[in-house]
Amino acid sequence: MSRRRGRRIAGGDTRTEILTAARALFADGGYAATTLRAVALRADVDPALILHHFGSKEALFRAAMHVPIDPDAIAAIVSDGDRGGIGERLCIYFLGLWEDDATREPLLAMLRSALTHDAATESLRGFVTEALIGRVSMLLDKPDAALRATLVGSQLVGLAIGRYLLRIEPLASADTATVTTWVAPTIQRYLTA
Amino acid sequence: MSRRRGRRIAGGDTRTEILTAARALFADGGYAATTLRAVALRADVDPALILHHFGSKEALFRAAMHVPIDPDAIAAIVSDGDRGGIGERLCIYFLGLWEDDATREPLLAMLRSALTHDAATESLRGFVTEALIGRVSMLLDKPDAALRATLVGSQLVGLAIGRYLLRIEPLASADTATVTTWVAPTIQRYLTA
Repeated sequence: MSRRRGRRIAGGDTRTEILTAARALFADGGYAATTLRAVALRADVDPALILHHFGSKEALFRAAMHVPIDPDAIAAIVSDGDRGGIGERLCIYFLGLWEDDATREPLLAMLRSALTHDAATESLRGFVTEALIGRVSMLLDKPDAALRATLVGSQLVGLAIGRYLLRIEPLASADTATVTTWVAPTIQRYLTA
Repeated sequence: MSRRRGRRIAGGDTRTEILTAARALFADGGYAATTLRAVALRADVDPALILHHFGSKEALFRAAMHVPIDPDAIAAIVSDGDRGGIGERLCIYFLGLWEDDATREPLLAMLRSALTHDAATESLRGFVTEALIGRVSMLLDKPDAALRATLVGSQLVGLAIGRYLLRIEPLASADTATVTTWVAPTIQRYLTA
């Protein structure tokens, strides 16, 4: 096996090159300032290839930064199903991500990093603002929609920190159904009251 | 001026010695495991001197770790005044601590440290559990009082993180009255519903 690689032609290699370039740019310049064109330039690939592999800037960010929160899933929760059940559905989705080892670990790492490093803060802030707050606001069609969405975020992030990071009892050991019973009405009120 | 100091006899020196000893023990062994006796031993002072200078273990912890949250103030908010206004009063008290530069900086430092270092997590967890959750639970006299108190904490910590640490808009720039209008009913429901 040759130790020198040719120009990236195999799919696997290209994907890795794109992810490496994206990670560097997102970490350095934040989410909003990073364009697919800049990632393509740095990875030395055609921008169309990024869309082919990842579909969108948002999906590229999630893959590069290991973010398990899926804005499509959240948008579906807000727009599909009965409106009175949004709080409960969002709460169950969010707790599900934190209860599963495979998604809890990257969430913990992302949160720790965003709370301690300015570049990571900026990067997460851009993603949350555009891909989560922005999208949910549009779907809500309410006055103060963006503020409502950030209030939901504040309760969910605080829940994650108290339960999974600081592990304060009895919140840390309460079963998810109990937590949902308490927190879902808060989420529901922020979104639709 | 001699470079060698005698045994601590001046009040100022004693206070500093106690704080240094307390900081080391709280950081190392956490809040619950650190006794006033152990702090006195390490600082080489009479335990009575610690009570004379600080009044309680809780107050010693707050002074040593620069924690501006005052459990006495929170207990007064919960037990004095009309019960229907607890959510609003707690929210105003909490936002006041974060809006003031002098108290925001140590709060930020404490939170960052607790979210990234296990010993600091353990230390803050002990203080929150004993001095905040424990006390508020007793005053509430409700089923699930401790869980209710931790849910309040989750909303307030999440608010601080979204507004002051990640600075997500429009939550970061909303005036405190608007934030209180939204968040106070959540706190109230967790405590008294």
